[in-house]
Amino acid sequence: MLYALVMAGGSGTRFWPESRATRPKQLLSIVDERTMIQATVDRIAPLIPSERTMVVCGSAHGMEIRKQLQQIAQEMILLEPRGRNTAPCIALGAYKLAQRDPEALMVVLPADHIIKNEREFLRLLGIAAKVAAAGTGLVTLGIVPDRPETGYGYIERGEVIVTVDSQPVYRVSRFVEKPDLERAKEYVAEGKHFWNSGMFVWKVSEIIRAFVQHLPKVAQALTKISPAFGTPEEAKAIRDAYEVLESVSIDYGIMEKADNVVVIPAGIDWNDVGSWNALEQIWKRDENDNAVRGEFLSIESRSCIVSSMHKMTVLVGVEDLIVVDTPDALMVCRKDRAQDVRKIHELLDIRGHKELL
Amino acid sequence: MLYALVMAGGSGTRFWPESRATRPKQLLSIVDERTMIQATVDRIAPLIPSERTMVVCGSAHGMEIRKQLQQIAQEMILLEPRGRNTAPCIALGAYKLAQRDPEALMVVLPADHIIKNEREFLRLLGIAAKVAAAGTGLVTLGIVPDRPETGYGYIERGEVIVTVDSQPVYRVSRFVEKPDLERAKEYVAEGKHFWNSGMFVWKVSEIIRAFVQHLPKVAQALTKISPAFGTPEEAKAIRDAYEVLESVSIDYGIMEKADNVVVIPAGIDWNDVGSWNALEQIWKRDENDNAVRGEFLSIESRSCIVSSMHKMTVLVGVEDLIVVDTPDALMVCRKDRAQDVRKIHELLDIRGHKELL
Repeated sequence: MLYALVMAGGSGTRFWPESRATRPKQLLSIVDERTMIQATVDRIAPLIPSERTMVVCGSAHGMEIRKQLQQIAQEMILLEPRGRNTAPCIALGAYKLAQRDPEALMVVLPADHIIKNEREFLRLLGIAAKVAAAGTGLVTLGIVPDRPETGYGYIERGEVIVTVDSQPVYRVSRFVEKPDLERAKEYVAEGKHFWNSGMFVWKVSEIIRAFVQHLPKVAQALTKISPAFGTPEEAKAIRDAYEVLESVSIDYGIMEKADNVVVIPAGIDWNDVGSWNALEQIWKRDENDNAVRGEFLSIESRSCIVSSMHKMTVLVGVEDLIVVDTPDALMVCRKDRAQDVRKIHELLDIRGHKELL
Repeated sequence: MLYALVMAGGSGTRFWPESRATRPKQLLSIVDERTMIQATVDRIAPLIPSERTMVVCGSAHGMEIRKQLQQIAQEMILLEPRGRNTAPCIALGAYKLAQRDPEALMVVLPADHIIKNEREFLRLLGIAAKVAAAGTGLVTLGIVPDRPETGYGYIERGEVIVTVDSQPVYRVSRFVEKPDLERAKEYVAEGKHFWNSGMFVWKVSEIIRAFVQHLPKVAQALTKISPAFGTPEEAKAIRDAYEVLESVSIDYGIMEKADNVVVIPAGIDWNDVGSWNALEQIWKRDENDNAVRGEFLSIESRSCIVSSMHKMTVLVGVEDLIVVDTPDALMVCRKDRAQDVRKIHELLDIRGHKELL
């Protein structure tokens, strides 16, 4: 059976002032009426019904997520007492599923990505599931790059291992850190590199084997608490395990070390919505390239990103700005400084503005 | 007796979104707790008590002005049915005062200027009143320029006519239109040119004589309605007169033509607050030259003007912006485009946003 693990642990400091500690990006409606996590769960529903969809999130967000995802049973929403990066999160989901269904196949999806070509996405997930079910290894979706993006890690493909429904599946020859622009251009030109999307498909038994081999402490901690899954002790057991779990990413902890990783190239119009700048690709743009959400007028202003859901915003003679208005905070940021939005969090903390975090 | 005429007819489109049709600049607290018109009336109170202070304003603002200036009797607040520039406004005040006190001396003041050196201002007003009372002519205050400002008209002084309390009073040799930068620099270097402040002192009888000579139609219209002043017919009489009054400035209509105009140089730290940019000279500035009103944090942002009274505003990596947040509208404008703020009014009108005008 095919299950989904939706990872919803992000804290979302890069979308301040829209995102806050209590409502990170995945719980916001940045793209459409639905929140990002709702869109993520809906998107896979034709393939994986909500009964087999599991969510792992920070304990502070459990209540809100239950409200947003009422179709998901409470026992399928697991609360992390603190963020420990992706490896412990995935291990938690894998061990919990293993207890329910040792033969389970597991799709791992971040809760805060956008995929416009949903049909192709589902087709590829189906193929990935077949590949994983056949015991070929750990499957990752690699996004076919349409530009020399320097903000993502890349996956370099090796030889074709198998072809399923005329879709070639490649051995991964290596994972590559975020490249410089020249290197990124080469990657796009060569066609052998894909963006590391953080979306995976594998047998639960296979990923557990990988944890045992590459992250044995994580495996031990989860093995220890497995008897508590599905009992009244579960929440406490998870809290105990997270006391000792190390913080490590699945990429660094497993994917870069395992020798049975394969990649399926995916042309699915994907965006990880990593900063306000990403909205430029997603929101409607006016004739002057302003990407806007809300009431807006421009006098000779160009290439701005504006989110203003509560009032009229007027720009006069400005370019390349991000303007985000919320009921209790306003941000104006140069587009090429979008990565520094997370510094605001720090600054607010230092200045004692806890109510705005 | 010395009277004041406070001209409060401005529509204030240059301070959008803070200023609106219903609350133009002079009715706002842009500088301190008091509104600008309150500050104007308070400032002259040591010299001219409220019983002798008259206000002329647009009929839409009468109610609000009565609320803000409760010390002023209702019959001293005159409502213009429409704006007709400064000459009709001053004529209205002059003819009304003439009926009450034909010997009246009259100080004319815009309601929306800032004067930081109030003591010197009152000293100079006192001197101006003496000069006017002696029949020397129409007295204007000329601001001693501290920078080569190209946004103001200038007054060129001629010879000294009289010295009062060791203050020389000059004949005006001519009024000069807004100069270019080179010319403005010459003016500042030569020391013979002053900014045209729009503040005047004269005998009511003298200015009425000037209206008869230079703007005879205005004089006729006001003469015709003078019997109605102080009667229940006054408001209707003013409305009738304004049907025929031409729109003309006191500078163009009288001052540039009269041959008995004198100027008293005034070093009073004056600002006409002509656009958002003026606030840079007025509000406190932080260590990065940001002039700010409200809660504010900056990450490497410089030389911005921020008015945000209702929420935290954070700027990241921006320079030379004007950011103004109000409950129902937000504006972000490049500082060198501050003059274009009035275009917003037009644009909002065209797009049907009457509620924001």
